[in-house]
Amino acid sequence: MQPSTMTPAQARALFRERDVATTAGYSAGYAQANLIALDKRYAFDFLLFAQRNPKPCPILGVLEPGQVASPLLACGDIRTDIPAYRVFSHGSLIDEPTDATAYWTEDTVAFLIGCSFTFEQALLDNGVPVAHIAQGRNVPMYLTNIDCEPAGVFSGKMVVSMRPIPASQVADAVRITSRYPAVHGAPVHVGDPASIGIRDLDAPDFGEAVDIPAGTVPVFWACGVTPQSIVMSSKPELAICHAPGKMLVTDARDLAYQVP
Amino acid sequence: MQPSTMTPAQARALFRERDVATTAGYSAGYAQANLIALDKRYAFDFLLFAQRNPKPCPILGVLEPGQVASPLLACGDIRTDIPAYRVFSHGSLIDEPTDATAYWTEDTVAFLIGCSFTFEQALLDNGVPVAHIAQGRNVPMYLTNIDCEPAGVFSGKMVVSMRPIPASQVADAVRITSRYPAVHGAPVHVGDPASIGIRDLDAPDFGEAVDIPAGTVPVFWACGVTPQSIVMSSKPELAICHAPGKMLVTDARDLAYQVP
Repeated sequence: MQPSTMTPAQARALFRERDVATTAGYSAGYAQANLIALDKRYAFDFLLFAQRNPKPCPILGVLEPGQVASPLLACGDIRTDIPAYRVFSHGSLIDEPTDATAYWTEDTVAFLIGCSFTFEQALLDNGVPVAHIAQGRNVPMYLTNIDCEPAGVFSGKMVVSMRPIPASQVADAVRITSRYPAVHGAPVHVGDPASIGIRDLDAPDFGEAVDIPAGTVPVFWACGVTPQSIVMSSKPELAICHAPGKMLVTDARDLAYQVP
Repeated sequence: MQPSTMTPAQARALFRERDVATTAGYSAGYAQANLIALDKRYAFDFLLFAQRNPKPCPILGVLEPGQVASPLLACGDIRTDIPAYRVFSHGSLIDEPTDATAYWTEDTVAFLIGCSFTFEQALLDNGVPVAHIAQGRNVPMYLTNIDCEPAGVFSGKMVVSMRPIPASQVADAVRITSRYPAVHGAPVHVGDPASIGIRDLDAPDFGEAVDIPAGTVPVFWACGVTPQSIVMSSKPELAICHAPGKMLVTDARDLAYQVP
């Protein structure tokens, strides 16, 4: 079966059994999600952080203590259905298991956060080129000097992803992604990387550099790595995240997040 | 000074000193908000309830324990700047003070929730008539049979407001209000009140009945009374709410909540 034509449940069943390089391309038309799972004593602060920073941290769903499935992953198990996890203790990576069950407790709360795969498909569908996809690379991501709104124990700087967009299509890219506020929404910055603290577009802090085609403008979107970065810098006792590029494939259609 | 031309800070200073019948019409162009304040032990459950029920419970801002001001009410005080409050103990109304300071503790968390005043202005600006405003009445509101998504200790049915919209303008009303997801967004139901458990449009559960003009269709929006109703049915030890129609006038412009 082609990855793109798998149902989300089929994709999750596959990832329960084995790891893959990336979930990109699986279950076309369905939203994928970032995972951050924390002990419930951090849950209000983190949910409030997300409420105050909806562009980097758009919440698609929350699994309460004791829940391992939800309408976003029907008949699934959040502890096993992502290809690989990263476990952090006091901000330090301690394990990269393909099954997170051993780290899960009855007090673990799981936050599912929107992923830019959704709006990238919308850009492509509308004829706006996405350079890193065309070049077969991971999207370049940068730590900025933009402060997130703090909440409780969580604070820090925003991480952005960058896509070079043809100058004639920047307005289209803004318009199209504005319609997906649940998956990072409109850009946070267009052009002028220096003013948000990015010194060298060729040296991203995460992901891979892309070749920047002539006639394009660097456009920056709030990135789903932000909450993971914030959580890591805030050093909770334990945090369980997805491994980069290996997302939760959800049962929600991309189009369900389109407004208005 | 005319109410409509007051700055939000001027309006709040006025309400700090005296009660008014309603805040409708004050500080034109600025968003008004519902208030629900709870002890911090309910805070995660309530914020999660709001995240799962964004149409009835769109969160504009949260004041953490110890905070009485925020960017939504600069130099203000949430305990005094609403004309009148309602205080509920275990779900029962126990007081209607004009100053809530005596009930506020260092563990109180305040949730500010979007109000339909914002989208009603957008309807009027676009030439869609709003019957209850034309008739000088409060909007009619109804308890429905629509279950909200539960979260923690909070669960219950959705409350909706109804506006009779000319059949030729129903699509416009949907389109216009869809652009304001932070203030209840698109309707949850168009026509057919019986199927959501409303037996008599002339007997609303809250607010006032309106005359329904010929050629109109009843259109139902999720209502900001829902969270208050849910909180009341869940009987937290203490809840501090605004008095109906007496909202917090915020420093956020209505247009800031328009997407895309």
